[in-house]
Amino acid sequence: MRSDCAVANTLDIVGDKWSLLIVRDLLAAPELRYGDFLSSGEHIPTNTLADRLKKLEQAGIVERELYSEHPPRAVYRLTRAGRELGRVVDAMADWGVKHLPGTRRITP
Amino acid sequence: MRSDCAVANTLDIVGDKWSLLIVRDLLAAPELRYGDFLSSGEHIPTNTLADRLKKLEQAGIVERELYSEHPPRAVYRLTRAGRELGRVVDAMADWGVKHLPGTRRITP
Repeated sequence: MRSDCAVANTLDIVGDKWSLLIVRDLLAAPELRYGDFLSSGEHIPTNTLADRLKKLEQAGIVERELYSEHPPRAVYRLTRAGRELGRVVDAMADWGVKHLPGTRRITP
Repeated sequence: MRSDCAVANTLDIVGDKWSLLIVRDLLAAPELRYGDFLSSGEHIPTNTLADRLKKLEQAGIVERELYSEHPPRAVYRLTRAGRELGRVVDAMADWGVKHLPGTRRITP
């Protein structure tokens, strides 16, 4: 813990270029499979995706449910805490649309 | 540009563990000097601070004004675009206070 600041501690979890894009994708769909994230426009590297999904699950933002054991296959959903990051994602979308020419709001 | 998504492009600028803490500090004060940032609770390393301030200035989020030439000394302020990141910082503060025990909202 760098400090007791709520912003700093939130950044320790989602302060990177990818985590909030995973949250963005899950805000637009009730659940996603691993491969669904790979098909987003930013082309997240698969090792980065695996790392971030694990971190988000440990932080209680994403939940993972196995729907097949052989081979192991899972779906991912936002927890309630994860859905509440929607306000952060939404504020970033508004800021980007206003200040970064050529960008647009991706659903939702 | 990874995609035309406003969130992805915003994260390309402030998607790290430090940039939004610099914005946080500047939301609480009309202007700050370099050393002021170093005294925040998270103890940002000085080379990281210099790098992030430069990046934020290039992105039009922070403006820098020299108030002494010999030795060179500057003050830093948020631009209007920078102040509008306040909604992102605010949403992160609310999320942290609610979901991360032991954290608190630092002024403002």
